[in-house]
Amino acid sequence: MSHPSIKSVREALIAKSGADFSLDDHPSRNREIFDDKKEASICLKKDAATINELQDKLYAERKRALLVVLQGMDTSGKSGVIRNVFADTSPLGMQVEAFKAPSKTELAHDYLWRIHQAVPRKGRIGVFDRSHYEDVLVVKVREFAPADVVEQRYEQINSFEKHLSENGITILKFMLNVGYDEQGERLRERITEPHKRWKFNPADLEDRKLWPDFMDAYETMVRRCSTKHAPWYIVPADSRTRRNAMIARIVRGALEDMDLSWPDPGHKLSDYDFG
Amino acid sequence: MSHPSIKSVREALIAKSGADFSLDDHPSRNREIFDDKKEASICLKKDAATINELQDKLYAERKRALLVVLQGMDTSGKSGVIRNVFADTSPLGMQVEAFKAPSKTELAHDYLWRIHQAVPRKGRIGVFDRSHYEDVLVVKVREFAPADVVEQRYEQINSFEKHLSENGITILKFMLNVGYDEQGERLRERITEPHKRWKFNPADLEDRKLWPDFMDAYETMVRRCSTKHAPWYIVPADSRTRRNAMIARIVRGALEDMDLSWPDPGHKLSDYDFG
Repeated sequence: MSHPSIKSVREALIAKSGADFSLDDHPSRNREIFDDKKEASICLKKDAATINELQDKLYAERKRALLVVLQGMDTSGKSGVIRNVFADTSPLGMQVEAFKAPSKTELAHDYLWRIHQAVPRKGRIGVFDRSHYEDVLVVKVREFAPADVVEQRYEQINSFEKHLSENGITILKFMLNVGYDEQGERLRERITEPHKRWKFNPADLEDRKLWPDFMDAYETMVRRCSTKHAPWYIVPADSRTRRNAMIARIVRGALEDMDLSWPDPGHKLSDYDFG
Repeated sequence: MSHPSIKSVREALIAKSGADFSLDDHPSRNREIFDDKKEASICLKKDAATINELQDKLYAERKRALLVVLQGMDTSGKSGVIRNVFADTSPLGMQVEAFKAPSKTELAHDYLWRIHQAVPRKGRIGVFDRSHYEDVLVVKVREFAPADVVEQRYEQINSFEKHLSENGITILKFMLNVGYDEQGERLRERITEPHKRWKFNPADLEDRKLWPDFMDAYETMVRRCSTKHAPWYIVPADSRTRRNAMIARIVRGALEDMDLSWPDPGHKLSDYDFG
């Protein structure tokens, strides 16, 4: 069974730059990249194992870090991605931050203040479950900040991410693109399945009513902030297994591109007295 | 194949209180709790799976947290414990902090300042790879602080941990008890095996020379700081698999004792409009 190459998954999902990008070109359901769900599952497992091996080297090297940004509407599967793509990675090498509505202290600072603090330490893989992009998504749609303030943020974010990438942080950004109907199904599931009921938040239905506004905000976000140093990938998210498998391919690819190897400080047994 | 009960593992490893505790009663090698290594491995895998299930409920509840403190001489296996005991737990539910020598900023505060900041958020399992106990271990042995300052710390730590436990944090403390000879083997291995070479730090040999002083400091630490609300477990650490399996039993036991269940906010499908 042959898996789709990392290159082909990247090319299928990466956002075109600037005005050429349209969400309409990115369906929430895609059965072409992985035509078979079982194959996706096998590919995911292999990639999770390889991601673990590469993370060990990243940790040993302690010079660079990987930051994975996850954005998507409710139920798009951010937690599922974290659990599955990093299923084999030691928690010691991971740093996951789930950003909620900002606290009073956080609001007393600029919106990137709390983000910068959560940037992964060298040697680690950091995951942002939601991120600074909320400040141009929900903040824009619900008008929590004036339009001209939001307007400035796209360039500020690009500049911030450029700074990080110039300082050893590889950035991958994934928009988990769940469809409107699929979201409806999943929100209902959160009520009907007892172990999911805690996740249901009636406020999510308010966001759902604003679906077209959110999609507009996502589209603008991608148009303005998909850069060479921090590209956006638009991931079809209606199939959980395929979604995880596609992201695992790209995460693995980014780690492979880092060309990691075991550091060798050149110690010799004969140099030391072990008592 | 029957596994040793959680109760029996706890009883075998928990430190006797106060002056009754002696490290001499705790060998670094123990083939009684798990007489068979394969059995330990199977038990560990089952417990890791159950720990994951329980953590999901802890996360859903978001009212309490578990803090696992790992202390031990170099090579005693702190990273190995983290990787294996939490092999199935989603990184989203974990918060691991590896404490190094304090930075200048950290030294400008009291020694519990950085520790308090790293206490796991409600719903998470936190792991301290080294901890505030370094402030009564290496700091004592190497005299980084005056003796009377160190002397005050045992009660300060007890009081701090009591505070945490009264505020919903269950605390488990594990001393990974590796033997002197086994440590020698493992340090040599760090030079002979290429993928471990990055881990070798010549300074570890300095600590090794001070072995009896460190053991004294560990003994005093356990005597003074094994409390009802935050007991010390002394884990035989010469066998990696058994060490991990024993800790997994106790972590699982602590989560089971929390009596976790899926929160049920009582939502009904008919109450909501899904659009």
